[in-house]
Amino acid sequence: MSLGFAVEATDGRARLGRLETAHGPVRTPAFMPVGTQAAVKGLTVDAVRASGAEMVLGNAYHLMIRPGADRVAALGGLHRFMNWPGPILTDSGGFQVMSLAQLRTVEDDGVVFRAHTDGSRHHLTPAGAVAIQHRLGSDITMVLDECTAYPASEDVAADAMRRSMRWARLCKAAFVPRPGHGIFGIVQGGVFPDLRAESARTLVEIGFDGYAVGGLAVGEGQARMLAVLDGLEGALPVDRPRYLMGVGTPDDIVEGVRRGIDLFDCVLPTRSGRTARAYTADGTLNLRNARHAEDPSPVDPACACPTCEGYGRAYLHHLFRANEMLGPILLSQHNLFFYQRLMADLRAAIAASKLDDVASAR
Amino acid sequence: MSLGFAVEATDGRARLGRLETAHGPVRTPAFMPVGTQAAVKGLTVDAVRASGAEMVLGNAYHLMIRPGADRVAALGGLHRFMNWPGPILTDSGGFQVMSLAQLRTVEDDGVVFRAHTDGSRHHLTPAGAVAIQHRLGSDITMVLDECTAYPASEDVAADAMRRSMRWARLCKAAFVPRPGHGIFGIVQGGVFPDLRAESARTLVEIGFDGYAVGGLAVGEGQARMLAVLDGLEGALPVDRPRYLMGVGTPDDIVEGVRRGIDLFDCVLPTRSGRTARAYTADGTLNLRNARHAEDPSPVDPACACPTCEGYGRAYLHHLFRANEMLGPILLSQHNLFFYQRLMADLRAAIAASKLDDVASAR
Repeated sequence: MSLGFAVEATDGRARLGRLETAHGPVRTPAFMPVGTQAAVKGLTVDAVRASGAEMVLGNAYHLMIRPGADRVAALGGLHRFMNWPGPILTDSGGFQVMSLAQLRTVEDDGVVFRAHTDGSRHHLTPAGAVAIQHRLGSDITMVLDECTAYPASEDVAADAMRRSMRWARLCKAAFVPRPGHGIFGIVQGGVFPDLRAESARTLVEIGFDGYAVGGLAVGEGQARMLAVLDGLEGALPVDRPRYLMGVGTPDDIVEGVRRGIDLFDCVLPTRSGRTARAYTADGTLNLRNARHAEDPSPVDPACACPTCEGYGRAYLHHLFRANEMLGPILLSQHNLFFYQRLMADLRAAIAASKLDDVASAR
Repeated sequence: MSLGFAVEATDGRARLGRLETAHGPVRTPAFMPVGTQAAVKGLTVDAVRASGAEMVLGNAYHLMIRPGADRVAALGGLHRFMNWPGPILTDSGGFQVMSLAQLRTVEDDGVVFRAHTDGSRHHLTPAGAVAIQHRLGSDITMVLDECTAYPASEDVAADAMRRSMRWARLCKAAFVPRPGHGIFGIVQGGVFPDLRAESARTLVEIGFDGYAVGGLAVGEGQARMLAVLDGLEGALPVDRPRYLMGVGTPDDIVEGVRRGIDLFDCVLPTRSGRTARAYTADGTLNLRNARHAEDPSPVDPACACPTCEGYGRAYLHHLFRANEMLGPILLSQHNLFFYQRLMADLRAAIAASKLDDVASAR
């Protein structure tokens, strides 16, 4: 198998695992910081690494437009370009084509669109999406998929899912296996259990190194999202990693882990960090709020991150009020530490068969 | 003497020295990163410290308005608030009152103005400016002065200088001496040698722990600025530190050091870092320029900063084009390292009596 994965312990449906990539191991369940444009917003790779993150996410749609996959390849690949020595998973850009690009036309052989940055015209095919990710040097390549908006009718969701499955087959055929590298299929089908089941069956029949669940966290709400995961119970191979794309809040992650998800990514820790929203053991805080103006205590007294070790809420409040970029920097750092600490706690809970206790104590 | 200072070597008029403050020593000539609003823009204190900086600058005008000197005092003082354990020099805010505040009225007992942030009304007196800096906990307090714009007539410059000298006397009287703390007078008088000489004589007669040269780098050009410094030769006590305020480019700093200046501060390294301008051994670069798009070499091949060790010009170019805040972060870090490396080189050159060689090789 081109991408190693071992489940080391289970607790209910939750799994403690270890992914082996060409750029090192990833302990799962894992949260990947989002480095859409070859940068985790506001954080140096040293800060990302210090948070405990082992794998980051890049985005083929953004990088094909700027700076261009060929340029990244000529500069030695994405790892070297962004100075991240660990594993990188790249999203194919299907989601971004749907949400960002202009004048997009989805056809059976791919999608034609104009870039949101400069209006340049692109034709992205399944094989092309894989080739771009190869040029970037991704450890984990994602298939090109068509994401539908929420809500979508069953007919629309079925059409998009079946086109995505045809594309998945073409992506798999275009993927060049190498040790420590893999390609993941993406289960689609909206909130419709039969479509999701059909999608999973099709992907398993094609055979992938891992299986993602896509098209969620797009407005359907946590209950419908978890219902989709519950509906997929038993549908995905136990010996391959499972990735819930674009999810989510700390609570979403706990519930995803309880349903057997191994990988997550989300912009929330850094986006929240830029807008003064802090994650803490007691919930979220808005540090712009006047009640923090004279509070010397750290953002989260239970946190050992550099932000909480060195700075108080009153200082962060001041930085956000004064529009100092150090505010977003320090709070993104804290939030990412918070997420990585959550993952470490969940891994420890699975190892100790105490996940239900940890989840219910939250 | 409340603030220790020893000249350890000289080379021409240049001095190698050591300032002893309540928060540790500062090797001079020294460059102070500017932390106007209790933050060096875009840099954590760890990054500031790693650059080699030993003392940072804060600004009483900005901090009295936001978050307020009393609040900073209640939170344990500026050092603790901003997590900077080393020495801090605070500017009194005279320059900012003139350049930023609205509806300002300069009277003999001080200045009345409305804050540029929220229009709130303030009355800043010489004694009040000192009291604010005491509440902040500054190691080095600056007197309140009236800066004139450039160009100013000799009459206008004389009036402002003499008022500043009356304020300097009141500031000295209000200053509470403590071990490791000091107050600096500020030589004013525009580009007029007689006024500058009168100002220096007056300050020396009052007696300060150090002497700043203010009102320069405001548009008069390097030649006039250096002429003012040359005109002050012999006018300031040799056993006290000299500080050239708000200066400047690397070349300005070299020329200031050659004229016996011990301390500098300037926003250039961080401001340039936010606008893609890089300092290198071969001059400045604009990293937005297309010629850097495919260049994997570091910003400055002669530099050992974390930015140059980890990232190439093409990556920084990409970050600035993509509006990623990591661009300003990484380049501010490099530029500050560049400035601190310059100061270390100048100190080594003075110790070896080779300052002229180093200066002419630049």
